[in-house]
Amino acid sequence: MSFPHRHLLGIKGLSEPDIHYLLDRADEAVKISRQREKKTSTLRGLTQINLFFESSTRTQASFELAGKRLGADVMNMAVANSSVKKGETLIDTAMTLNAMRPDILIVRHSSAGAVALLAQKVGCPVVNAGDGAHEHPTQALLDALTIRRAKGKVGRLIVTICGDILHSRVARSNILLLNALGARVRVVAPSTLLPSGMADMGVEIFRTMEEGLRDADVVMMLRLQRERMSGAFVPSVREYYRYFGLDAEKLRAAKPDALVMHPGPMNRGVEIASEIADGPQSVIEAQVEMGVAVRMAVMETLMLSGELKR
Amino acid sequence: MSFPHRHLLGIKGLSEPDIHYLLDRADEAVKISRQREKKTSTLRGLTQINLFFESSTRTQASFELAGKRLGADVMNMAVANSSVKKGETLIDTAMTLNAMRPDILIVRHSSAGAVALLAQKVGCPVVNAGDGAHEHPTQALLDALTIRRAKGKVGRLIVTICGDILHSRVARSNILLLNALGARVRVVAPSTLLPSGMADMGVEIFRTMEEGLRDADVVMMLRLQRERMSGAFVPSVREYYRYFGLDAEKLRAAKPDALVMHPGPMNRGVEIASEIADGPQSVIEAQVEMGVAVRMAVMETLMLSGELKR
Amino acid sequence: MSFPHRHLLGIKGLSEPDIHYLLDRADEAVKISRQREKKTSTLRGLTQINLFFESSTRTQASFELAGKRLGADVMNMAVANSSVKKGETLIDTAMTLNAMRPDILIVRHSSAGAVALLAQKVGCPVVNAGDGAHEHPTQALLDALTIRRAKGKVGRLIVTICGDILHSRVARSNILLLNALGARVRVVAPSTLLPSGMADMGVEIFRTMEEGLRDADVVMMLRLQRERMSGAFVPSVREYYRYFGLDAEKLRAAKPDALVMHPGPMNRGVEIASEIADGPQSVIEAQVEMGVAVRMAVMETLMLSGELKR
Repeated sequence: MSFPHRHLLGIKGLSEPDIHYLLDRADEAVKISRQREKKTSTLRGLTQINLFFESSTRTQASFELAGKRLGADVMNMAVANSSVKKGETLIDTAMTLNAMRPDILIVRHSSAGAVALLAQKVGCPVVNAGDGAHEHPTQALLDALTIRRAKGKVGRLIVTICGDILHSRVARSNILLLNALGARVRVVAPSTLLPSGMADMGVEIFRTMEEGLRDADVVMMLRLQRERMSGAFVPSVREYYRYFGLDAEKLRAAKPDALVMHPGPMNRGVEIASEIADGPQSVIEAQVEMGVAVRMAVMETLMLSGELKR
Repeated sequence: MSFPHRHLLGIKGLSEPDIHYLLDRADEAVKISRQREKKTSTLRGLTQINLFFESSTRTQASFELAGKRLGADVMNMAVANSSVKKGETLIDTAMTLNAMRPDILIVRHSSAGAVALLAQKVGCPVVNAGDGAHEHPTQALLDALTIRRAKGKVGRLIVTICGDILHSRVARSNILLLNALGARVRVVAPSTLLPSGMADMGVEIFRTMEEGLRDADVVMMLRLQRERMSGAFVPSVREYYRYFGLDAEKLRAAKPDALVMHPGPMNRGVEIASEIADGPQSVIEAQVEMGVAVRMAVMETLMLSGELKR
Repeated sequence: MSFPHRHLLGIKGLSEPDIHYLLDRADEAVKISRQREKKTSTLRGLTQINLFFESSTRTQASFELAGKRLGADVMNMAVANSSVKKGETLIDTAMTLNAMRPDILIVRHSSAGAVALLAQKVGCPVVNAGDGAHEHPTQALLDALTIRRAKGKVGRLIVTICGDILHSRVARSNILLLNALGARVRVVAPSTLLPSGMADMGVEIFRTMEEGLRDADVVMMLRLQRERMSGAFVPSVREYYRYFGLDAEKLRAAKPDALVMHPGPMNRGVEIASEIADGPQSVIEAQVEMGVAVRMAVMETLMLSGELKR
């Protein structure tokens, strides 16, 4: 059994065994971070470059820790303040880094497809750490790992994704992954935050939390990305919370042991009530821990299998 | 003999033996940085996160080098440009980091008390690297180490702290530490830069350098923090220097072998004359070296004793 | 055979054997980055500080990787946002870092001479990573290494440097190095981008690409640094490209196997046509790879020979 892909650019294209392979390795990686000495020498002497064209403290930190715990040399590139400003193209940046002989590139970019384009030009595995509104595959994997560890499985569970689907690569990657593993996926969103063609993605669409959450095993809240909205429709925070914010009353529609998830950073009182975020059903902190483990699993898998192919 | 505290949030609450315990360990740490190979494996595989909500190149660098020389994996979090901007609360940031299973957090924040609040929420030791105008304990410890190494003791010395006491967490932590070790502490400041309630802190207050410096063993100059002043009183640099800047003439009032200290970065010609900063009585560079050693001692102590308690 | 200099502040002052000594070591360093495990323990436990007063993602990344691959502990100091803003002088910053006992300092600064000034004040070797319009010695060394590996030698080759000579420390360091190795150096530039006194540097000056490129073995394009130009003369990009941009037609004047070089980041369609940058004569990516190797060679040489002198 192995993982047949050179890069991790999205969940699209991964099979159910591919996903479980990564989740199984991530289960092993969780143990490393829970030891006193959180360090292996698996990737000793290998070079990991975090190339973030869009800044993200949390995701970058998670990849950085994952690499360090595997023994890699990790270098962060703050590209927003750099050559890009001097007019260098994305491809030139990629070629430059490639010439420094990295063993893996972790890339975040504001444009959908930019990471895949870059991956074509370099000689090492590339992990998409978020590209525009397209995909964020390690987020979907960490969500799946969190669910699988809490519920013992993902398939056949009812998972409801709520909120700003339109601007969310997290939603997109999760829908793909949950479908691949055989979950029943629902989305709940105001019509203005729902992309067209949603029905083709194999999800059930609901207009109200009450309906969408009924009997759900997992409730995934999304961040309201007001910073990505412009012009016409920026919802009022108060209105949004009233109809789509997860509070105790709305959560009652779900199964009593339903998991509550959020990719962070949270807007408390906007998409989620504080009592729910901090309540017994919340697995929001577990998601963060699983994030480091999933990234360890993905990097180790790609760097070691890439090696076999050389 | 051991150190009975889980965190280092301030000098307040430390006993005289606690302080000497840290200073003794710091004396050992000084030797490591003076070797060719400045590296031990004491903290190998442990994760240190520097969480700076307020930027500080010098302090962060000192902690970073200290951690690396102990063999820890060090991660810097530039929080000003991150989730905090997206509306995440301090506590959520803490919980997120905590879920990544760090072994120690080094935190600087612009609000007094924020570091202590954060420490309540995480599962690892926390070091306060400066919180508002409250405390900056490693600065006070490095100052004490510098004095103890130069004078053989701290107790019974006359130490005069001069300048902008009002905005200075450095002054506050130093007063607490020097009192705990039995030094005689004086302050000299213009009345507008002196907080109320100063007399209750066990210090003698002087209005002129000439009086305050008489027979002093140690002269601690503070940085004039003009960037923290607003509205009513921002002193003229020229006036300030004339009355409160340390020059050769004013220094003559102190003992001939009095130490001259400054936490840096210095405003030459504002709070201190260049000839004094670079003169034979200055131990300003020694303070920086002792800073790395003290931080090594503090982190090693907290991380290893925290372990015993698990 | 050894390297008789404590610092690398510029190419000026290096002899031909000095340069070949560094290039020979760099040839060895290339092999390390091409191995799977890109890591030696040559500089284990030594502290490298990258002190960049002017930001440069590419150069800093190259030095960072070089240090990590040699096993050093590397610390990046983002000085633009730091003590310098608080009014600390260059020398105080140097003294502060020096007290932290680094083993090597890599310094970039916007003022010519600032790095040499700083080197006088510290107790460890200093590498100039670019100071104003003065020198950028590791860039010249990596260019020479690229040429020597491709052509087997540097001496007696015709090397034409084209473009914005006026603002270019790269041009200056390259002219010094190429002359030291006995190459025949030409420059081509519009008169407004040519510094006075150029003829004294031992170069031939040409006004047109056609003349300057005739029979050249190497064509070095420079970046048009529009961000450094002000007031009177900022050339129109279109005009500049027409007369001084390297395209297929202009390149035809050079030898058929002439190397095409660019220090990056490139302005495609300004100083160079994309088809040439990506064409068979381009060694632009090799330059980046050689950059890491040259920096490894320089740091290893200075840190180990500095040691012998202690």
